[in-house]
Amino acid sequence: MARDRQKSDKKRQDGNRHRGGQTGGRPRHAGPDGRDGVWLFGLHPVRAALQNPSRAITALRATRNAAADLADLAASRNIDIQDTHPADIAALLPPGAVHQGVAMLCAPLSPPALEEAASKADEDAIILILDQVTDPHNVGALMRSAAVFGVSFVVAPDRHAPPESGTLAKSASGALETLPLVRVGNLARAMKTVQEAGFWVVGLDGDSADTLAALPTSGRLALVLGSEGKGLRRLTAENCDQVVRIAMAENAVGSLNVSNAGAVALYHVTNQRQ
Amino acid sequence: MARDRQKSDKKRQDGNRHRGGQTGGRPRHAGPDGRDGVWLFGLHPVRAALQNPSRAITALRATRNAAADLADLAASRNIDIQDTHPADIAALLPPGAVHQGVAMLCAPLSPPALEEAASKADEDAIILILDQVTDPHNVGALMRSAAVFGVSFVVAPDRHAPPESGTLAKSASGALETLPLVRVGNLARAMKTVQEAGFWVVGLDGDSADTLAALPTSGRLALVLGSEGKGLRRLTAENCDQVVRIAMAENAVGSLNVSNAGAVALYHVTNQRQ
Repeated sequence: MARDRQKSDKKRQDGNRHRGGQTGGRPRHAGPDGRDGVWLFGLHPVRAALQNPSRAITALRATRNAAADLADLAASRNIDIQDTHPADIAALLPPGAVHQGVAMLCAPLSPPALEEAASKADEDAIILILDQVTDPHNVGALMRSAAVFGVSFVVAPDRHAPPESGTLAKSASGALETLPLVRVGNLARAMKTVQEAGFWVVGLDGDSADTLAALPTSGRLALVLGSEGKGLRRLTAENCDQVVRIAMAENAVGSLNVSNAGAVALYHVTNQRQ
Repeated sequence: MARDRQKSDKKRQDGNRHRGGQTGGRPRHAGPDGRDGVWLFGLHPVRAALQNPSRAITALRATRNAAADLADLAASRNIDIQDTHPADIAALLPPGAVHQGVAMLCAPLSPPALEEAASKADEDAIILILDQVTDPHNVGALMRSAAVFGVSFVVAPDRHAPPESGTLAKSASGALETLPLVRVGNLARAMKTVQEAGFWVVGLDGDSADTLAALPTSGRLALVLGSEGKGLRRLTAENCDQVVRIAMAENAVGSLNVSNAGAVALYHVTNQRQ
């Protein structure tokens, strides 16, 4: 299965390279499934992608100001910057995208297969598993926090999770280029796979009796986060080795946004281990 | 000054009530400064606003499904729900707003003045001060986390901070109705005011030598968060009693989003005190 996925990623990249060869032609608007490539936008994500040797780049469009900012990096990758009006950049992107004068068409990344990533992880590795986190802003913000707290890789399903996109990359603020986002067909099977690789699998659930303080302070750890609205699915919770909650104030009102819950849990786990 | 602001809030509310009296008329699109009222959207923020007796409501528009969900609450407030097509609801709101079939025109809230809020706070109160956090999603997410961690109130400047809006309320997920968002004209003066009220004022800055672990574990505490891009301004940092950073992984890449940084800091402080 892993090999099949890599093959299909390879195919996608070739497709993008081909279109990139149509010099002078306007790159087609990237489809939401990333099949036609991904339009990254914003100075930070585009800079990070230019610095990522694994990122195949098809086209780079920028205003004169943004182009000046990116000129050296683009030259180091041998990529021409097409001088483009801000309105024409906006037209390539989702409505309201804060593009800062730059959009770059890229091939989607080819993350490693789960088995490979899990077997290569450190003895004290922490990974993040996202169960139906559907908002690309949240997935991006979780990637960003994961990079800050030294997470080895992030796992998300092929379906019920946002594809690689400019919005996700913008929220990830560069982390998408440095931290593998591993896709899996079946989350229950993925949890089993990482358990077999020695990961202690911990679900985060507000209704649990135990708090983060009950977690093991060493060894491989996989933190599972549920959907924005409903939290952890019953079956996902049952497949966890342990389920814990974040300790809140006595007079707490409401619940944390999933990206904030993830950041807090990663902070706790990282600091508990130092 | 505090009295002037309350007066002007009062005036706005009266204005909205008046417009609400034009039965049959289409409420004007709410201006970005909230002068014409605030269009809240989404089931959760609208439910929370209906449950907030301090929230003056002008109009409630919903699809048949959303109306069924809100009927009891609306009846308890004596508010008619106008049966509205989803496209007509979307037209009242920012592009891409996830309205879930409901939009409600409200008067902006009238938060207490800073002096009053500070003097009424508990002996161990924690408050949040936002210095140029400009993204309404971030301010909303910070309000949501603040409510979870029992923060007494949040302080933001009148300018260089987003006004009360549907987008902010959606990200706050109800917290805007329960947690005062106190506005101040001058942030440096506001920091002095809370210091005089016995708050230990702590700035969060990634370059600081000390971590959150160096904070006092009791007494009134004000946590100051800087802008998304640039962090704490120099003058703001100088006005703090202490500046600390969030301990990150040794192999950390990047920095936390301001709302995640706030959630982590509040988690640390709350749990340190239990």
